[in-house]
Amino acid sequence: MRSVSVHTPSSSYDVLIGSGILGELGARVRDLTAARRCVLVSGENVFPLYGEEALKSLRNSGLQAEALVFPSGESTKSLARYEELLNFLTEQRMTRTDCLIALGGGVTGDLTGFAAATYQRGIPYLQVPTTLLAAVDSSVGGKTAVNLPAAKNQVGAFYQPAAVLCDTDTLATLPERELRAGYAEAIKYAVLGDADLFDGLQRRSVSLDEVIETCVRMKADIVEEDEHDLGRRRLLNLGHTFGHAVESCSGYGLLHGEAVAIGMAMIANAAVRMHHMDEKSRDIMIELLRDYGLPTETDYTADELYDILLLDKKIASGKLHLIVPHSIGWCNTVAVGPEELRQWLEAAYE
Amino acid sequence: MRSVSVHTPSSSYDVLIGSGILGELGARVRDLTAARRCVLVSGENVFPLYGEEALKSLRNSGLQAEALVFPSGESTKSLARYEELLNFLTEQRMTRTDCLIALGGGVTGDLTGFAAATYQRGIPYLQVPTTLLAAVDSSVGGKTAVNLPAAKNQVGAFYQPAAVLCDTDTLATLPERELRAGYAEAIKYAVLGDADLFDGLQRRSVSLDEVIETCVRMKADIVEEDEHDLGRRRLLNLGHTFGHAVESCSGYGLLHGEAVAIGMAMIANAAVRMHHMDEKSRDIMIELLRDYGLPTETDYTADELYDILLLDKKIASGKLHLIVPHSIGWCNTVAVGPEELRQWLEAAYE
Repeated sequence: MRSVSVHTPSSSYDVLIGSGILGELGARVRDLTAARRCVLVSGENVFPLYGEEALKSLRNSGLQAEALVFPSGESTKSLARYEELLNFLTEQRMTRTDCLIALGGGVTGDLTGFAAATYQRGIPYLQVPTTLLAAVDSSVGGKTAVNLPAAKNQVGAFYQPAAVLCDTDTLATLPERELRAGYAEAIKYAVLGDADLFDGLQRRSVSLDEVIETCVRMKADIVEEDEHDLGRRRLLNLGHTFGHAVESCSGYGLLHGEAVAIGMAMIANAAVRMHHMDEKSRDIMIELLRDYGLPTETDYTADELYDILLLDKKIASGKLHLIVPHSIGWCNTVAVGPEELRQWLEAAYE
Repeated sequence: MRSVSVHTPSSSYDVLIGSGILGELGARVRDLTAARRCVLVSGENVFPLYGEEALKSLRNSGLQAEALVFPSGESTKSLARYEELLNFLTEQRMTRTDCLIALGGGVTGDLTGFAAATYQRGIPYLQVPTTLLAAVDSSVGGKTAVNLPAAKNQVGAFYQPAAVLCDTDTLATLPERELRAGYAEAIKYAVLGDADLFDGLQRRSVSLDEVIETCVRMKADIVEEDEHDLGRRRLLNLGHTFGHAVESCSGYGLLHGEAVAIGMAMIANAAVRMHHMDEKSRDIMIELLRDYGLPTETDYTADELYDILLLDKKIASGKLHLIVPHSIGWCNTVAVGPEELRQWLEAAYE
């Protein structure tokens, strides 16, 4: 089993990565919290696969455990589902020392984390990511949120989990498309700051466990320095500015990782045209994305994406930070206003 | 002008108390935040009195400012109003550096604070309390919340304001009943830990400004030590356990301070019967409450209140902490399970 410690100003916790960890869920909750009751939150795709095993582990450890299962998909990250979850916690008479478990991907983790952050002003929760995307990204770092109709992740909290348990057995049953989408985030970390990881991904010489550990270690390092996303943590948005716009245009028909892959290819193209990145680096970056079966182009026009980008919460104050790649393992931040953003976006198409 | 500094692990800020402070609102926001836009949240009773002056102060300082006014009363502390406020902030394109202003009593402060805690994962806010109750209690210390149908303050966050501006001119226009209800909380502080304040309230020899400063100073001291309400901060619940039950039975027809006055008289009676408090202390405590025109008895039966108490989030785990007065200026905490709680409740009626 691999373990990465995350230390933030607000709390410290471990991310455990390996086979069979799900069976230890109950023991971990007993170790880390004073909970007597647990509510397990999951999605209707994931719960039939791992829900019973998780509940059994909790109950075998002497915990009362009930599950609440939501429809899978981005639309579950809503205030309506949040309210449903809070009412369920109240019905279950959950107290401030009881514990929430998020079993699933990013949608489940973000919604559950936000409920944990705010139910009775904060109760403990564990992240149990069952997608590669959640394992390497959303389950670590304490960003929780739901969407408003007009804006994604508009309401939330920075609230760290008591632990992240990543059972790699659950990733083995992931649909091929979801696994590939997860690799988009892993490639992001490699481009951001780890040429060795990039090399390993190219050669397919790193195991899934190693990929997760490497990405989580990098994220832990960044989050430790900038828990509240005011500086260095912004780097994690590589590929996300244009990616979010593409994802939004697709009506979330694209997976998040697929949209990020397109966003990374776009910003790499723009970075070449704007003389930040050399062509060779761009080419091997896009080639790696394609190698992992990820899309790197979009049919949406610059006009369509720009309209979406103007709704972004950061551009309104003229302070959007584009993450621009320079070479494999080196990116930096460029602050742009609406006009410059338009230039960068058009450069992505040239 | 009086000033009390509050230092918590998460942040430090000042509570300013005095005449005419509302006119400085815009300057304070400019000093304390990087805001370009402000949204002022208020209640329909308060906004017509002070809303325009507040907006004018903000705009005169070069800030864009819009107001959102909610119905007065406890029913505004709902997830539905919370959602309405979040959507308004989104429409106004508020960013993470912009600022919310809560102009009003506890309902406005609690709702606004929770929206500030969670909009874009946290934006600055200022408390501008216009009731004595909010001035001495809810506006200081960072407890924010909304209610669920089944439980009061069930959803919220600990999130400190950037400042609390208490303009005592706004308290001068308070209806007599609301002012009296505020004094219930002031008497609570005196019983908790300040016999001099108790004496001053008896003799009517302390000014309103002094009362507020003394209470805020005591609260700041407690919150500094126990921001997240895990120990000493519980003392602030003196009179609140039975008081909340009475308030709930009344369908919120009683003001919060009135219910707390009844709750304090009840716990004092019980403390005498359970040999924690002497009769003389109890008598002068109840006399002071009556002197300030506050109710000290209820027609609701022990059975009615007990049913409500069993719904309390803390009793479920057998860990409800009753705050029990011993003498004027000295209280302590007694942990009770459901059975003992019943005994304490019945003792309040004997």
